[in-house]
Formats: sequence, C-alpha cells, structure tokens
Amino acid sequence: MSPGRVGPEPAWPVSLRARHPCKASSLYFRFSIRFVNAFSVILLDLLPAKNGEEATMQFLLELVGILTNYVRKTFDRSTKVLDFHHPHQLLEGMEGFNLELSDQPESLEQILVDCRDTLKYGVRTGHPRFFNQLSTGLDIIGLAGEWLTSTANTNMFTYEIAPVFVLMEQLTLKKMREMIGWPSGEGDGIFSPGGAISNMYSVMIARYKYFPEVKTKGMSAAPRLVLFTSEHSHYSIKKAGAALGFGSENVVLLSTDERGRVIPADLEAKILDVKQKGYHPLFVNATAGSTVYGAFDPINEIADIYGAWGGGLLMSRKHRHKFSGVERANSVTWNPHKMMGVPLQCSAILVREKGILAGCNSMCAGYLFQPDKQYDVSYDTGDKAIQCGRHVDIFKFWLMWKAKGTIGFEQHIDKCLDLSQYLYDKIRNRQGYEMVFQGVPQHTNVCFWYIPPSLRGLEHNSEEYREKLHKVAPKIKAMMMESGTTMVGYQPQGQKVNFFRMVVSNPAALQSDIDFLIDEIERLGHDL
Amino acid sequence: MSPGRVGPEPAWPVSLRARHPCKASSLYFRFSIRFVNAFSVILLDLLPAKNGEEATMQFLLELVGILTNYVRKTFDRSTKVLDFHHPHQLLEGMEGFNLELSDQPESLEQILVDCRDTLKYGVRTGHPRFFNQLSTGLDIIGLAGEWLTSTANTNMFTYEIAPVFVLMEQLTLKKMREMIGWPSGEGDGIFSPGGAISNMYSVMIARYKYFPEVKTKGMSAAPRLVLFTSEHSHYSIKKAGAALGFGSENVVLLSTDERGRVIPADLEAKILDVKQKGYHPLFVNATAGSTVYGAFDPINEIADIYGAWGGGLLMSRKHRHKFSGVERANSVTWNPHKMMGVPLQCSAILVREKGILAGCNSMCAGYLFQPDKQYDVSYDTGDKAIQCGRHVDIFKFWLMWKAKGTIGFEQHIDKCLDLSQYLYDKIRNRQGYEMVFQGVPQHTNVCFWYIPPSLRGLEHNSEEYREKLHKVAPKIKAMMMESGTTMVGYQPQGQKVNFFRMVVSNPAALQSDIDFLIDEIERLGHDL
Repeated sequence: MSPGRVGPEPAWPVSLRARHPCKASSLYFRFSIRFVNAFSVILLDLLPAKNGEEATMQFLLELVGILTNYVRKTFDRSTKVLDFHHPHQLLEGMEGFNLELSDQPESLEQILVDCRDTLKYGVRTGHPRFFNQLSTGLDIIGLAGEWLTSTANTNMFTYEIAPVFVLMEQLTLKKMREMIGWPSGEGDGIFSPGGAISNMYSVMIARYKYFPEVKTKGMSAAPRLVLFTSEHSHYSIKKAGAALGFGSENVVLLSTDERGRVIPADLEAKILDVKQKGYHPLFVNATAGSTVYGAFDPINEIADIYGAWGGGLLMSRKHRHKFSGVERANSVTWNPHKMMGVPLQCSAILVREKGILAGCNSMCAGYLFQPDKQYDVSYDTGDKAIQCGRHVDIFKFWLMWKAKGTIGFEQHIDKCLDLSQYLYDKIRNRQGYEMVFQGVPQHTNVCFWYIPPSLRGLEHNSEEYREKLHKVAPKIKAMMMESGTTMVGYQPQGQKVNFFRMVVSNPAALQSDIDFLIDEIERLGHDL
Repeated sequence: MSPGRVGPEPAWPVSLRARHPCKASSLYFRFSIRFVNAFSVILLDLLPAKNGEEATMQFLLELVGILTNYVRKTFDRSTKVLDFHHPHQLLEGMEGFNLELSDQPESLEQILVDCRDTLKYGVRTGHPRFFNQLSTGLDIIGLAGEWLTSTANTNMFTYEIAPVFVLMEQLTLKKMREMIGWPSGEGDGIFSPGGAISNMYSVMIARYKYFPEVKTKGMSAAPRLVLFTSEHSHYSIKKAGAALGFGSENVVLLSTDERGRVIPADLEAKILDVKQKGYHPLFVNATAGSTVYGAFDPINEIADIYGAWGGGLLMSRKHRHKFSGVERANSVTWNPHKMMGVPLQCSAILVREKGILAGCNSMCAGYLFQPDKQYDVSYDTGDKAIQCGRHVDIFKFWLMWKAKGTIGFEQHIDKCLDLSQYLYDKIRNRQGYEMVFQGVPQHTNVCFWYIPPSLRGLEHNSEEYREKLHKVAPKIKAMMMESGTTMVGYQPQGQKVNFFRMVVSNPAALQSDIDFLIDEIERLGHDL
C-alpha cells in the first residue's frame, strides 16, 4: 500500500508524498497537496503557541486527509479487512513504524506518518465484510459526533461545564424509557462506559433497593444474597457479582432450552432451592439477545434486563415483541454501541424508580456539586454515577438519532435481521453445514458448523469427529485473518465444539457480503 | 455570534451561509465555500450508500470546518469562555436549536447546524481563561489522536481487533511503571474509564491479594475489612467502599495537617484502633495531589496511591520528589487526562504484581478469549478488566508522548507549577485576599478567599463574617458565568466557608491570564 521507509525520521516533503496512500482523484489530495511544501512546522508552532493558528489548521487538515482516506477505503470491498501481523512483528517495528516512546519530541511530519501507520496495521471494523464482533460498522454521523465530542473535550458531571450534553442525555434517556414502555418515560438512568458497568449498576441498584444499609455497613448487613442469570448470559453479571462482594458462587446460572433461552421452571426451582437454604434471592437477570445464540429470555416474571446486544430491537415495530414484558423490569441495560451502530462507547442503564441511582451512589462531594450555584443543580448528574469524570457518550447517539429518526434505526435493525435470515435460509440445508440450533434466529446471530469434506463421512457422535471439528473454525479463522478478506467469530459453548457465530450489525453489509463469507469459508476450509 | 433562525429546517444555502461563524480569512472558509452550493444531500447519500463517497467527504469537510473554527476561537482571548443559559432556556430551544428527538430524519444541513449550535452553547474548556476543572486545555495532538481513535472505532479487549492499540497500551504502561520506579518497569496495569474506576480496581486488587476467596464466596468469607484514606481524599474511595461491599462506614478518614496532608501518627493510631476492634486493616490510600488543596500525603509507610491529579508530576525532575516512596506502593492510579492535558478519558491503574489483575477479574469468557487463536493470546487483555468492551483511550496519550517526548510533558508541568507560584506570590500579601493555607502550593492548587471591601472591617471569627464570606465566591462565580469571561472553582472544606480553588493545567494559560482572573474577581466582587 505504501512503500517502505528507511530512516526513523525521514525528511518531510519527499517521504510524505511517497507514502501518501490516497488516490489522485480524492478531495483530500486536492487540498492537502497545496500545503505539503509549505508544511514544515515543529510542535511548538501548534496552538496555543503564538501565531500557531495556521500550523494547527494545516496539521488538522493533513490529519483529516488521512482519516477520510481511511474512511473511503473502509467501505471499499477491494481493500482488505486487515493486514495481519503477529505482536512480535509489530513490536520489532514494521517498515520503521516505531511504537516505543522516547524523551525527545518527534516532528509533526513523523506524527502524521505514525497516524497513517496506526491505521494501516489496524483492523477496519467498518468494512462491509467485518462480522467479528457485536459492534461493527462505521456510521458517518456517529463519527462526526465523536469528532465534535473530542473537540468539545468536556465532562458530564455538571451542567456547569456540559450544559448541552447534560440536557441531551436527559432527553435521550427519557426517549429510551418511553420505548421500554415505562409510563410517560418516567424514571432515571445514566450513560456508562459499557454494558458491563451498566450491569454492575443494575445489581447495585437492586441491592440498594432492598438492603440500603449495605451502602454504609457493607455486605455483612444483609443475608446471603443470590443473583440469577442464564448460563448463556454475558460474563459481566458474574464479574459484577465478584466485584460487588456477592461472590461469583452466589451467581446462580439458569438452564436454557436448545435455543439458549432461560427455562422459567428452572428459575422457579432454583429460587425455591435458594430460599430453602435460607439465602435471599435478590436479582434475576433476563438477557435480550444473548452474546452467542442471540437468544431472548422470556421476560415476564423477571426483574432486571440485560439487553445490551438486543436493545436496539426495541426500535423495530416488527421485532420489539421479543421484549414482551420488558416494561415490568426495574432496570434495563441498553448498548446503542452494538446493534444500533453508535461508535464505542455508548451504553445506558435505565432505571424505573426515580432517585434510586442517586440514593445508591451519592457521596455529596462538596467541591463539585455545590448547592449554591446560580442554576437548578438537579441537572448536576455526577453524583448518581460511580465514576467522577464521565466521558461525553451521548452526543454521537443524539446526533445519529436526529439524523436517522427513530425510523432510521428501525430500518437498520430490520435490514440486519433480514440479512441474518438470508444467511440462515442459505446454509440451513446446504451441504457441509450444520446449524447449532434449529429455527429462525431470534436476533442476527446465526450459529453453525462448517464441515469440511474430509469429515463428512465420520460418525457425528464419535470423539474423533468432535476433536477434528473443534479445530476447523479456528483454522479457517486464522487463514481468514492471514489473507485479510473477512472476519467472523467462533467459540465453543458448553458441550458444543467450536462453531462460527455470525452476527450482522454493520449497515454496510449486503447479501453479496454474506455470499462472500460463505464462499470464503468454503474456499479456506474445503481441504482441511 | 450568529443571527437567529426562523424555521426549524431552513433552506440550505442561504441559512448556512448566514450562520457561518468563520472569518473570511480562514483556511476553512476557503475550502468550504466551494462546496456550499453543490451541497444538498440527504442522509441516505452518505457511505455506505452506493456512490456515497463524495457526499461523505463533503459532509466531513464541512464538519471539520466547524470544528477547526471552534478550535481557533477557543484560543482567542477575545471570545467568551461560555455563553451561559439556564436549563429551561436551552430546553425551550434557543434560536431554533431543538434538542428533542423525533421519528423522522433531519437533513444533513440541519445536522451541521445542530453541530454548530451544540458548540455555541457549550463551554470552551480549552480557553486560556478556563480554570474551572482539573482537566482543562485542548491539546491539538491529543485532539488528533481522538479523531483517529473514533475513526478506527475498535475495542481494546483483544489483540485480534486492536493489534496496534493493545501494543501501545502495553508499552505505555511499562513506561509509566518505570517512572514510578518499579524495577525494570515490571508489573501490570490497564487503562480504565477514569480515576474513580481505577481506584475501584486498586481496592479490588488489595482485597484479592489478601482474601482471594471473596471473589467466589463474597465478603462474608473475609473478616470486617477497613480502608483508610485522607479526609481530603477524593470521594471515589468512599464510593468504591460502598460499591464493592465494604460499606462506607468501613472507609476510615484520616486527619490532615493545615496543608491537607495526612498525619502519619493519625494513620498509626487508627490502624491500632481498628485492630483492637478485631477488624482487618486492608488498604491505605495516599493522595498525591488532593482535589482541593493539591496536597501530597507523605507516601512512605502507605500501601496504595491515588495520584490521579498529581500523577503528571512524576514526569518532572523538579517536582517528582513529592512522590518519594511511591515505588513502595502496590498500585498507583494515574490520570493523564488531568495534569498532562490528555483529552478525556485517559486514566490508568498500575499494579506492581504481575498476574493479579487477571486473577482478580478473569471469568474466562470462551466466546471472546479463545485459547486456540493463531497468535500469542497473552496479548488479549480483556479478561483483566471489569469491563467487557473497552474504549481505546491509549492512542491520544501515546501520540502526545511521541509528539512532546517525556521532556515536553516535563516542560508543561513545570510551567503550570510556575504559574501557580506566580499566582500565589501575587495574592498572598495583596489587600483583600486571604490564603486558605500558608506556604508555596505543592501542586498547582491555590486556595484563597477574596474579601470584598464591605467585609474587611468585620471581626474574622464572627458568625456574620463567616456567613457573608460563604456567599462571596458563589456570587462572583455566578457573575463570571453570566458574563462568560473566565471560570474558576469554589467549595467549602470542613469548617472552612466557600473559597476559590484555582488550578492550572491548561497549556494555553499565561501570566496575563492569571492577572486577568484576579482583575475579574475584583471587578465582580468589589461591591458585594
């Protein structure tokens, strides 16, 4: 893509032009080339240095050229998803890309080269053929929102220094609560740095609701408290149990049916069992869109919802029935940074009872939340959080909602679910494929084994077959990454050996990309 | 700054040009004006839409114009720090700036207008006269780092999808451990979403170190555990105590001297007292740069360090003696997003013992951390975290370190401390000022009362004087915000009534800005 560099700090005009990875036809090239010869500044010339304005603008425009070029390539199916290198290769310094930090400053020219190299050796998570994670895609409006957020560089803890963002958060949370179905969207909530932290909040709130004295006296003030969650649920519930002092053994895993959904009778039996032992059942977590199977637990009778992955489906009039009963939950975790394509990080914990977040977490820091400010200090939300400083995660989401409307999110979600049904229909009877579970996917998760011809004659229950099949997905995945053509996740689950978990949340993905994935799996796996 | 808008969705060319807040001489204007007439696209035209490339580039360049214009204004002392409005005013919709979300999409033109309005009604935290928070300033390299980070939009949990960032984190953490003074920079660490979460990690690690069974069995498996921290320390230690199941009553506050430093004899006495009661002293937190006074606790004899605010001083050969003994700590919290001017969020928890982070937090999620990958999976760091998805906070910091060198951070820190000494020297004997404590500031915090002429004759120990003085700082601050000229924090502390806490971390600040602040306090406060 770009030719090698010899020295660690090359002279600017020659090397930059030689390394320029953009096409002559691009807008970026047109405006950046004008500056290239005049552009030889050192760091001290950037703002806030005196007369630093022009150098700053030039530097930022050069950078934007690099970034927009990356964006353009991200969506270009003829580029690779990644250019894989092992850790030791990158640490040794690829073509002069030196990761080590030093005492002396680098030139701005070199900083721009570093930026280009950082992108070059990374993974294009917005590429139409990147299916590896629940969070994929690169939404341009969301990106714009992040650029603005970092330019504003402020903190959510007080209205004083984030007036607009605090109000946006409040309005957006209300809108989300309306979609959950709580009367008039009443309640509370906060954006947190991801689903695991949101789930931690939900456990803390439940504990505070029934045993408020734990806040001051610790866990010894309560009986032995037990949390319940699906054996298929995200590991963050267990992490929260360990961190918050419950102990991971007091997180009871619920059995699931063949589709990965909690069996209500099992929950009932386990609650009874816990009660008979004299422990206190505190919290039941229902998962709306489990990580691997994409399963929706039956929500009625269940107290708190972890819908980090599935939350977006609330936006779809066609699919929101899968959340039936969600309005009965006391708290809901919802990660717009997954299914809805908002850039990382964007996760919300929504709470039905007003005031409980503050009750649970406030410590009344006088230096931050002065009661004698000139504005209505109920807008200072920082004391509700377990964080102090809190990144502005709301703006990109708010801006995307503005730009798409609720209807735009709905279309995106319906399209992703259609694509996953397309994949399911394509492979369920196709030679060489076996589904991990039968039936139309509840979410965009499609779980399947690819069985290479050499395994097809073996007895499926034999240990040999299982051992060989277990190695197929990792091998195909490794070859995919080496060739850089596409990426999809795999994992074992319980007694089931490694299988592929395909998910669709990328707005760039088309049916042809699904076709490509299948072709690629067969191309790479055929001779295994 | 920009004229009013009449309708909610004005026609593009007229209103955009009318609202353009940039100067005719700016670079931005030169390239943006070329597109303005051709620019009438709707959302569906953006990437990944077919042929969306040109619309995307135009949209992003328009946005960059808005952002660079904001950057330019941020450093311009003739602009206001903020344009204050009350919550109800912003909610009612200022000049058509409508915060409400709707079902239908907005035009891209309107989205750009929304971006401009969002910045217009926000606070310029990078303004040379913004002194309100520990995090101030707008570092251009850090900003570039954030723009790139959001363009890459990936997740720190595996090497697989963040190879470069994972390695940068590893190298940077090692460098930070070297600065702490741990042999060969050995140990472990992770970037977390802020100092409060980093502190939570440090408490969890201490608990796991001495009572590992709490992870599985909960707090009932341990004796009553007690945490110690300064009465001046950040409230996050108490929050962590409450959240993690210790109970806030088991966070014992240590007395401080007149400068806000923990008195070692008090720690000793309180540890003995706790032991006599049969409880277990688990964790002692030393603060390096307390929030209000900027005090450095005497670190020797103390186990864990919270140096979120002061951490940057480790970079300064002149000031790092204040950390004497830090290498004896088991864990250190260090927030580059404060004193070092890295954009929010950027906080690290550094740990002396290798493996303990993973031991404490791992839950071995099979779907994410497959052992059978083709690369060295010890680089998959996600299972060390209490989060699952983790935002890329490292790149901006790494890039700033590259651009400045260690020496650049040192210069920045020395300059900020010099400025605070300048302020101290200026006001300590000035009429109308009283210092909250005597002596040269340990950090950049300068705490003082401004005493308006009407109060100067009153008996300083009288209740009347205290009551009146308590109202002075809030009143001056409110007037500052209304006039938008500068911002500085205030708070009470213990028995001390409201006083100003001046901090300097903004690289844009000059002596003349300190002079301006003092003039402004006197101008606004003189007739109170």
